[in-house]
Amino acid sequence: MDLSRCAIHSITHKPWTLAQCCNKFAAAGVAGISVWHNVLKPISLDEAAKIVRGSGLQVPALVRGGFFVSSEPDKRRAAIDENKACIDEAAALGAGMVVLVVGAQPGLPLADARQQVCDGIAACLDHARACKVKLAIEPLHPIYAADRSCINRMAEARAVCEQLQHPMLGIALDVYHVWWDPDLEHEIELAGEQGTLLALHVSDWRQVLRDPLNDRGLMGDGCIDIRGIRRLVEKANFRGLIEVEVFSDQYWAMNQDEYLKLVCRRFADCV
Amino acid sequence: MDLSRCAIHSITHKPWTLAQCCNKFAAAGVAGISVWHNVLKPISLDEAAKIVRGSGLQVPALVRGGFFVSSEPDKRRAAIDENKACIDEAAALGAGMVVLVVGAQPGLPLADARQQVCDGIAACLDHARACKVKLAIEPLHPIYAADRSCINRMAEARAVCEQLQHPMLGIALDVYHVWWDPDLEHEIELAGEQGTLLALHVSDWRQVLRDPLNDRGLMGDGCIDIRGIRRLVEKANFRGLIEVEVFSDQYWAMNQDEYLKLVCRRFADCV
Repeated sequence: MDLSRCAIHSITHKPWTLAQCCNKFAAAGVAGISVWHNVLKPISLDEAAKIVRGSGLQVPALVRGGFFVSSEPDKRRAAIDENKACIDEAAALGAGMVVLVVGAQPGLPLADARQQVCDGIAACLDHARACKVKLAIEPLHPIYAADRSCINRMAEARAVCEQLQHPMLGIALDVYHVWWDPDLEHEIELAGEQGTLLALHVSDWRQVLRDPLNDRGLMGDGCIDIRGIRRLVEKANFRGLIEVEVFSDQYWAMNQDEYLKLVCRRFADCV
Repeated sequence: MDLSRCAIHSITHKPWTLAQCCNKFAAAGVAGISVWHNVLKPISLDEAAKIVRGSGLQVPALVRGGFFVSSEPDKRRAAIDENKACIDEAAALGAGMVVLVVGAQPGLPLADARQQVCDGIAACLDHARACKVKLAIEPLHPIYAADRSCINRMAEARAVCEQLQHPMLGIALDVYHVWWDPDLEHEIELAGEQGTLLALHVSDWRQVLRDPLNDRGLMGDGCIDIRGIRRLVEKANFRGLIEVEVFSDQYWAMNQDEYLKLVCRRFADCV
């Protein structure tokens, strides 16, 4: 089973600690881990960095920064500070990027929210460069447009990248969020040309959504043409690890060792 | 309370029969009803037409045709026959259009599905012209891309209209499905110029989606800038009725007379 391109997000195995994730992923032959904040909270950053480095795993990303949108200027300023701190943490862990879920606020006009995102990211880019950590805007499915992300397609993430024109800024493509977009192929080509394609996250879209947040499918459970999208991003010269990011009450309830075997099998078969 | 621009979809008051909907809507001063198939099933088409005409209500639409997508050619042919029958029903009811939910099939590539939609609609247009009934493509929110509609934005509906170039074909804009789209304003302008803006459906997007199908908000319950969208469509010369279409287990459980008062109040206050 070739897992040399496979990374797994720690949240995929939510019941596990960072140490468990690192040990088990490395033992399974997985190449990398993307680290979510929740596994950092119970331990010091030094300890986390030691665990991650000791595992030999690559660390594509720290997940997640962002949430730049607020009608209150104080909160927008606080978000910028938090994102800078997040960049510091990523650097300490040896993570190549911070994934940005950019934020939204119900009732705030989307155009205003999008401008706040642009301003917030702009304020973090110098710090990102100093720390050698990239920032990856993750377009979220339009189902999350009200409260989580006012950037919902590759085209909108590209607009921010084009506006800010910064070598540390790019896009994280998550198949779950963008698989339906008829412009996807074209946007992947553009991101390839512009050098902004920083990440590929994989999971699957179940036909019947039982819960809008925590019912993602594992690759092969749903209708996304994951292999087709992988071909497109590789044609666009993406060479990074491919990251498994699955939120699922169903899978979190499984024996996690068995689940990891399934994740690896599905990665080999469906990605 | 000015309800001279207000129509209500029969499904909004799912517990009521067609006769109840017509009597109650007319008594409340509502200007029109869009008729769903489920209220036609228990009665003959003649009887339905008599009820609707007797009420004096306008009938913007029969809801809904479409579902052109299938990997099986027989089913695609059957869908075309069903849509023609639907056009006949609309004509009998005096409805100005049939709203099309175009269909999708999990696993079928979206590009193929979109071509099937184009072909299916093309096969119905002459019949639509003969019956003087328009066909309105309703882009559905991307959450429904897997199983209900492979057309998820105004831009994609426009692409079909531009490909088929037919005076009986246009677009039904439902704020619930397209409110998040950064291209919305531009697409409304284009639809106005092209004469394809056939309908405006209103409801609201709750911040926290409890159920992806039957938890729509009533206007004012959520975050959609309905008045702003209304201004845009009127600037684009839309002069039709504005149709309230709300699927909601919560509201269906209410006393429907009280609910109708609330619908009318919210229409006056929030649309």
